[in-house]
Amino acid sequence: MGLVVQKYGGSSVADAEGIKRVAKRVVEAKKNGHQVVVVVSAMGDTTDELIDLAGEVSPITSGREFDMLLTAGERISMALLAMAIKSLGHEAQSFTGSQAGVITDSAHSKARIIDVTPGRIRTALEEGNIAIVAGFQGVSQDKKDITTLGRGGSDTTAVALAAALNAEVCEIYTDVDGVFTADPRVVQKARKLDWISFEDMLELASSGSKVLLHRCVEYARRYNIPIHVRSSFSGLPGTWVSNEPQGDQPMEQAIISGVAHDTSQAKITVVGVPDKPGEAAKIFRLLADAELNIDMVVQNVSAASTGLTDISFTLPKDDGRRAIESLEKAKGSIGFDTLRYDDQIAKISLVGAGMKTNPGVTATFFESLSGAGVNIELISTSEIRISVVTRKDDVNEAVQAVHTAFGLDSESDEAVVYGGTGR
Amino acid sequence: MGLVVQKYGGSSVADAEGIKRVAKRVVEAKKNGHQVVVVVSAMGDTTDELIDLAGEVSPITSGREFDMLLTAGERISMALLAMAIKSLGHEAQSFTGSQAGVITDSAHSKARIIDVTPGRIRTALEEGNIAIVAGFQGVSQDKKDITTLGRGGSDTTAVALAAALNAEVCEIYTDVDGVFTADPRVVQKARKLDWISFEDMLELASSGSKVLLHRCVEYARRYNIPIHVRSSFSGLPGTWVSNEPQGDQPMEQAIISGVAHDTSQAKITVVGVPDKPGEAAKIFRLLADAELNIDMVVQNVSAASTGLTDISFTLPKDDGRRAIESLEKAKGSIGFDTLRYDDQIAKISLVGAGMKTNPGVTATFFESLSGAGVNIELISTSEIRISVVTRKDDVNEAVQAVHTAFGLDSESDEAVVYGGTGR
Repeated sequence: MGLVVQKYGGSSVADAEGIKRVAKRVVEAKKNGHQVVVVVSAMGDTTDELIDLAGEVSPITSGREFDMLLTAGERISMALLAMAIKSLGHEAQSFTGSQAGVITDSAHSKARIIDVTPGRIRTALEEGNIAIVAGFQGVSQDKKDITTLGRGGSDTTAVALAAALNAEVCEIYTDVDGVFTADPRVVQKARKLDWISFEDMLELASSGSKVLLHRCVEYARRYNIPIHVRSSFSGLPGTWVSNEPQGDQPMEQAIISGVAHDTSQAKITVVGVPDKPGEAAKIFRLLADAELNIDMVVQNVSAASTGLTDISFTLPKDDGRRAIESLEKAKGSIGFDTLRYDDQIAKISLVGAGMKTNPGVTATFFESLSGAGVNIELISTSEIRISVVTRKDDVNEAVQAVHTAFGLDSESDEAVVYGGTGR
Repeated sequence: MGLVVQKYGGSSVADAEGIKRVAKRVVEAKKNGHQVVVVVSAMGDTTDELIDLAGEVSPITSGREFDMLLTAGERISMALLAMAIKSLGHEAQSFTGSQAGVITDSAHSKARIIDVTPGRIRTALEEGNIAIVAGFQGVSQDKKDITTLGRGGSDTTAVALAAALNAEVCEIYTDVDGVFTADPRVVQKARKLDWISFEDMLELASSGSKVLLHRCVEYARRYNIPIHVRSSFSGLPGTWVSNEPQGDQPMEQAIISGVAHDTSQAKITVVGVPDKPGEAAKIFRLLADAELNIDMVVQNVSAASTGLTDISFTLPKDDGRRAIESLEKAKGSIGFDTLRYDDQIAKISLVGAGMKTNPGVTATFFESLSGAGVNIELISTSEIRISVVTRKDDVNEAVQAVHTAFGLDSESDEAVVYGGTGR
């Protein structure tokens, strides 16, 4: 039996009961003969509470000291988990990100892992210990300062450690049963996937599925570390994310892995842009300089009579105001008529590597939306994904219709107990 | 202007308001031209809350993981304080015990400082920063594990840093105005001392005064670091603890520095011990092996008729049960009749280096107790201290009477606002 990295999120260790439940599960893996490394997040709302406290003493919301503050949360949960495991009669040692050798750059609040040197973890494992590691944190290579990895950082810690330790698998324990073909809160017949490829998971993650973050999957793909997403509550097998199906899973890939939706975006249309070379470039250079992340971009064919065209793009709602302000300021130099802002949109994405070799997927997708009376406002495609923008009010009908049209509906009528891809 | 180390306890940084108040005071010292190093404790009851949380998941109450857990508290307060100072427009950097170079042995929960290598603190100061350091914690020399220094550990951190950085003074900010001639809650006319010698402060600390712990004063004496104990609330000058009086303070030492009392001890009498060589040694070896700290010891003259004697000693109440159990177990090998246990006692101590050269101090001490109708049960003396054990019920009258007899009463009738030596 090899080495397993397990990651438990804040909801799994929200209180003393949760920590004791996790401790039992960890000990089980150890008893099954594995070497076990556990990555933990801060308990429940600890991190939010620390952020609130910071807000009371200072307007500072990032940087060296802020990271120092936030990392206290994982330090508490990891020590408690180690103690809970010890009281079950097994040896455990906890390690901060720095002690675990998680070396990052100096970009506080969103540090990137440069290297992992888990010498102390290896020693702890060789001495028969279970190693507990604080997620979400590292130490900067140049200044030896404590850094945090940003949103979803604990998942990245787990995958990075799994890679550095050559683990068999990285198990991500969460409050859902795995990755679903659609958000079970929207599609009652959504099915849990037994397996999904890294590529499809990456597309789902960028299309609104929140089970795993893009960055963590990207890391796992680069180092070929299989991820097993599963529930810390049910104990059932979850979804494997890997290059190839595991064990007795069917070798042939499904045409479609799932339907994701995202209602967190807004659409901006720049109306009346002169249709000449360099105009679009000006707009997107401006947005890039403002560090705004643009998602879908569509340019209409210009009306021959006016020589003007419209450019639409989507971006996170939170960035909407800044984008509008940047564009308004540059109105003279870019040269356009007006801006339209619309945050009542939804993005619906169909993801599956099988669509490359299966003609008609796009047609079926659009027909199913049309059949549900859903209007398509923007379209963008990749090799293994088709995304459309619709009215936000139509999102549930749209996702349901597409799910059914591609034969993804579960035959069972059982209600799904836990969340799903859309969370 | 030189370097100042300031230490703020948990009550000074109990909430956001407290942290902001401390930040202002720190910035004031910086504005006055000092290089400033600040040592902070955990906020208010944080450490106790973490201990409670640990109790919910595990019966473990010490060791590597427990120390890792507890040190999260200082990490939170130091980061918040650094942020609060920054938002006042001054540069601040926070450092864990490990980052500050506080190197300890591996005795978790009661680690001793072996070395202080404050390279990062020096750099931070040279770059114009205020340095904030987590009190109470260090890193073990051999295993590089996080350790805690035990009760009052933050004061020790402050003094140790002051010594390593060659500071002008170590300011200990607390919720009392300084060191008093007696506990102001017991003696209304207790006076705040402007200065007290290291030696007298050591004796007061071992005699029940809780303003400074013995260990911290011992460290300061060894490295000759003046301590200034003062209130973080009032801003008034407090008490200097040093080798010699500061500035315009009178050079001649008072005969008596103060009267301390301690009601946390119990008395055990071993009755009917054979009065022959080696008997007492057996008893105290036994107690030492059980790691019990004995304070006063008195052996009565044996009654010639029986050849038996009684040996009495005092020790912390918390250790009472263990001491009795150890002695009972060894009753056969030691050979005594019975044990008497009494926790209704008080120890009252008169401290002052001046008593060495002033005859009659002991007489005045005993006369004042007798005048107040207080019976003396045990007596022990050192060069600069006389201690007696009395009934606990008599403690207030006894302290008051001694305080008056030695002319320590303040002439002012003003009530003292904050606590005092007895806290």
